[in-house]
Amino acid sequence: MTVSLTVLYNPPADPAAFDKHYDEVHAPLAAKIPNLESFTIVRPGPGPDGSAPPYHLVATLTFASPEVMAEAMASPEGKAGNEDLANFAMAGASMVVGELNVVV
Amino acid sequence: MTVSLTVLYNPPADPAAFDKHYDEVHAPLAAKIPNLESFTIVRPGPGPDGSAPPYHLVATLTFASPEVMAEAMASPEGKAGNEDLANFAMAGASMVVGELNVVV
Repeated sequence: MTVSLTVLYNPPADPAAFDKHYDEVHAPLAAKIPNLESFTIVRPGPGPDGSAPPYHLVATLTFASPEVMAEAMASPEGKAGNEDLANFAMAGASMVVGELNVVV
Repeated sequence: MTVSLTVLYNPPADPAAFDKHYDEVHAPLAAKIPNLESFTIVRPGPGPDGSAPPYHLVATLTFASPEVMAEAMASPEGKAGNEDLANFAMAGASMVVGELNVVV
């Protein structure tokens, strides 16, 4: 049972500073989380009507099971990634966790 | 350049009716969208502190390029999926679209 953790970052006050920190510090930290099966990033564009996207960046991490994910997030690497949020995600982020169901 | 379309469904007034319609009608409709590379669903659980998840269901569809996605969404199958939102997503949904970057 693959489990997915999606982090939805609110639009930051300083998008350039957010992006620089995310790419140079946060993504490399998160990539070191043990037993990470996949880690993908989307930087949403404007909506079909040109409206600003509701989130600045959407990151999705997957793990083999909820137990593996819990261990990974409690590891030193998982804690380091979590603590780093305070350095760039001041605008807040929502997280959603659940089983990944493949339809297609 | 893989492009990802994520649909974040707000918590519905009647979760059981939403889930039944999603599984029996909407997911089969969406699965017929032409040139769909992948289609995955997450039904988020409560947060680590037991809080209700911000979204009831998160669906992610991927396509080979923005052009393929635009054609797919303008196809009869894409339009049918979009029109079906009125039948079950009355609580609203947010969509985010962007290039999918694979880190791990």
